[in-house]
Amino acid sequence: MVDIIDKKRNGNELTSAEIQTFVDGVVSGKIPDYQISAFLMATYFQDMTDAERSALTMAMMKSGDHLDLSGIDGIKADKHSTGGVGDKTSIPLAPIVAALGIPVPMISGRGLGHTGGTLDKLEAIPGYTVEVAEQDFLNQVQDVKCAIVGATGNIAPADKKIYALRDVTDTVDSIPLIASSIMSKKIASGTDALVIDVKTGSGAFMKTLDDSRALAHALVEIGKGVGMDCMAIISDMNQPLGNAIGNALEIQESIDILKGEGPQDITDLVLTLGAHMVVMAKQADDLDTARAMCERTITDGSALAKFGDMIAAQGGDRQVIDHPEIMPQATYQIALPAKTSGVVSHVAADEMGVASMLLGGGRQKADDQLDYAVGIMMNKKIGDAVEAGEPLLTIYSNREDVDDIKDLLYQNITISDHADPVTLIHETIR
Amino acid sequence: MVDIIDKKRNGNELTSAEIQTFVDGVVSGKIPDYQISAFLMATYFQDMTDAERSALTMAMMKSGDHLDLSGIDGIKADKHSTGGVGDKTSIPLAPIVAALGIPVPMISGRGLGHTGGTLDKLEAIPGYTVEVAEQDFLNQVQDVKCAIVGATGNIAPADKKIYALRDVTDTVDSIPLIASSIMSKKIASGTDALVIDVKTGSGAFMKTLDDSRALAHALVEIGKGVGMDCMAIISDMNQPLGNAIGNALEIQESIDILKGEGPQDITDLVLTLGAHMVVMAKQADDLDTARAMCERTITDGSALAKFGDMIAAQGGDRQVIDHPEIMPQATYQIALPAKTSGVVSHVAADEMGVASMLLGGGRQKADDQLDYAVGIMMNKKIGDAVEAGEPLLTIYSNREDVDDIKDLLYQNITISDHADPVTLIHETIR
Repeated sequence: MVDIIDKKRNGNELTSAEIQTFVDGVVSGKIPDYQISAFLMATYFQDMTDAERSALTMAMMKSGDHLDLSGIDGIKADKHSTGGVGDKTSIPLAPIVAALGIPVPMISGRGLGHTGGTLDKLEAIPGYTVEVAEQDFLNQVQDVKCAIVGATGNIAPADKKIYALRDVTDTVDSIPLIASSIMSKKIASGTDALVIDVKTGSGAFMKTLDDSRALAHALVEIGKGVGMDCMAIISDMNQPLGNAIGNALEIQESIDILKGEGPQDITDLVLTLGAHMVVMAKQADDLDTARAMCERTITDGSALAKFGDMIAAQGGDRQVIDHPEIMPQATYQIALPAKTSGVVSHVAADEMGVASMLLGGGRQKADDQLDYAVGIMMNKKIGDAVEAGEPLLTIYSNREDVDDIKDLLYQNITISDHADPVTLIHETIR
Repeated sequence: MVDIIDKKRNGNELTSAEIQTFVDGVVSGKIPDYQISAFLMATYFQDMTDAERSALTMAMMKSGDHLDLSGIDGIKADKHSTGGVGDKTSIPLAPIVAALGIPVPMISGRGLGHTGGTLDKLEAIPGYTVEVAEQDFLNQVQDVKCAIVGATGNIAPADKKIYALRDVTDTVDSIPLIASSIMSKKIASGTDALVIDVKTGSGAFMKTLDDSRALAHALVEIGKGVGMDCMAIISDMNQPLGNAIGNALEIQESIDILKGEGPQDITDLVLTLGAHMVVMAKQADDLDTARAMCERTITDGSALAKFGDMIAAQGGDRQVIDHPEIMPQATYQIALPAKTSGVVSHVAADEMGVASMLLGGGRQKADDQLDYAVGIMMNKKIGDAVEAGEPLLTIYSNREDVDDIKDLLYQNITISDHADPVTLIHETIR
C-alpha cells in the first residue's frame, strides 16, 4: 500500500489492478485508515487521470450490490443533482418523464447541513415511504414508470467507508473523489441514461464555474467510460432554486410546478432536464420536441396524475395533490420586511439553507429529526424590485421568536440599485 | 483538527497554537491516526514556513523529557549525521574533541536497512553498553568528557508516533518533517552547539545536492530559532565513507583513525567536523587552529586514550584498542576480484550497505539480530586504478557461499577508463 501511495504522491498513474487492490483493502479493512487518508490527500494534490477515475469508480461500484433493471421495458433514464438549496427538481421531473412512458428509477438521498434531501421532502407526505424492497421498486418502475426511493442493499460500501474518512480528513473537495463517489452509486443503480445537474455558486458544493465544469466533465467521462449514456448541465445555485426551502413547502411547490403554476426558474430547469432525458430515452429526436412533450404532460394533467400514482404506490396519501394542508403546517408565518427600497441583488443560497436547517427543516448532524413544516418562502428573488417594508421572504416556523433567523437572513440578502442578470443554465456538457 | 488540516492543505501558515494543538492531540491520542496522516501528506505537498518548523520542533521536543546539561562545565558540543554507509564518524570524533576538554554528550541511534548505527557498532566491543542511566551519562560527560549512549527516558514521544505513521504513509521524505524530527530530539538532548553532517548522494537519504542543501538550511534555521549554536556541512555519500562497512570492522577503522592510520576521506571528515566543534566550543578562534588541535590529539595519543576511557566508562574492554581481535571475527574473508582493468568510476554506496546487511551486519527489520563480525572492506575506491584480478573489496562473512553478495556487489561497482573526481565536503551552511 505504501507503494501505491508513493506512486500517487509522485504523480504517476496507477493501474486498474493497483486501484482494485486499494479498494479491496478498504472494504476488507486490511488497509488501515491512516493509509487510506494519506492516499486520499495525495489524490487531492495529484488528481487522477480519466483511466484512474474510471477504475476507482468501477472498483467501488463492484464492492457492493448493484441493481439489474434489464427486466424493465425501455430505456431507463435518471437524473442526479450535486445538490443545492431549494432543489426539489427530481420530484416534479420524475413524474413528467414517466408520464411519457419512460421508466425513471430514482435512488435518492437525504439532506445534511444547508442542503435538503429529496427523500426527506417526500416523507413530508403522510404515509410516503422511501424504504422500498428491491423487487417492489423494480415492479413500481415497470408499472408506474417512476419511483423515488432510498438505496436498498449494500451499495458501494467502499465509497461509504472512503466518504466517511474524506469528511474528517479534509479531502472532500477533490474532483476525482467526488466524481467516483457519485458515479459508483449511479452505475450501481443500473440506469441506462443519466443527466447530471451540476450546481454552481454560493449554495453549491462547487462555488466557481471552473470547478463545476471540471466536475461535470469528470462525471460525464466516467459515465461514458462504462458505456452509460451520460451528459451534464451546469445550473445556477447562487440563489435558492424556486421559492420554497423546507420539506412540505417544497412538496407544495413541486405540485405547483406540475400544475403549471410553479416559479419560472425551477420550471425551466425541470423542463430542460426532462427534455434531455426524453431525447436520451429516444422518445424524441430533438430537444425542442422533447421539451414540448414535457410541457404537454403538465397542461394535460398527466404528470400530476403520475405523481399521484407514484405517491400511492409508495404508500402515501395522493390527496396531498389537492390538499397540501394534510402535510405538517407551521404555526407561525413571519414576514421579513425589506429595510430599504431597491432591487434584490444578492441572495446567499447556502445561508438560506442554513436558516431553514436552524428552524428544524434540515439536519446539523446525520441523526437529527426533521420538522417537515418549517422553512422559508422567498417572496423576492435576484432582480426583483422591492419597496421598504415589503416582505423579502416568509419564515415558516414552529417557534415564535425567530430573531436569530431574521438576523441571519438580513445579513445574506442585499438590496441595491442594480442587479446583474442571473443565468440559470450555464453550460451543457456531453 | 479538520480546520488545521484544511489550513495546511490550502497552503496557509499555521500558528504556534495550532501546531501545539496538533502535537498535543497526537500525544494524547485525541487526534486519530487518519487525521494525523492526512495532515502529514498535506504538509508533504505544502511544506512549512520557518516559524511553523520551529513551532513543530519545539512542540515535539516538549512532548517528552529533555536533558539538563547545565551541571556540566563548558560548552557542550555534539555532532549529528543524517546517515550513510560506512559512516563511523562519531566514534573517533567524540574522543578527539573530548581530548581537548570539550564535553561531547552524544545520544545516538541504531541502524536499519542499508545504514548502520553508531550504537550497533560500539556494541561490537565486548562489554560496551549503550544503555546508561541519565545521571551516569551526565557524570561520564563531566568526568570523561565524552559518552555515546542510546536515548534514555521518553524523548519526543510525539516524534516517535509521527515517525511511525510517516513510515507507513509515504510521508518520510518531507523536509519540514525530517528536520523537526531530528531537531526535536537534538534540542531535547540539551547540547549547546551542534554540527550537522548532511549526507548527499546514492547512499544518503537525500540523493541530490539541492535536497541536501534544503534539509541543511532547515536544520540550521530550526536550531538557530531556539538559540542553539548550529551549523551544517554537506558531505559526500556517493561511495562508502572510509573502507570499512560492518560493525566490528568499523570499530577497527575508528581505532585506525585515532592512531593516524585511517583512510584519508573519513579522517579528513572527522578533522573538519572536529574543527567546527572546537571553534563552536570557543576553544579556538579559527578553523585552521582548531583542526591542528584535533590533529595533535591523534599524534600525541590523547584521543585514542580518551576512546579507551570512554569504552571503560561504559563497561567495555579497552584492550580492544590494541587487540581488535577480541571483537567477533568473521570465519571467511573472500576477495572480490576486478573483472577488468581500469579505474573505479562508480560505487553505489547504498548497495554496499545492503550487501553488509544481507551478510548479517545490518537489520532488515527493527528486531533483527546483528552479526558484528561481518561486513565489507573496500580495497579500491572511486578514482583508484585497478588491474583485472586485483581485489576490489573483501567480503567478511560467516557463510561460505556468498555468490548472491558477489553478484550484488559486481552490479554496483563500475570500472571505466576515467573517474570524475570526488568532492568530500560540498558546502558549509551556517
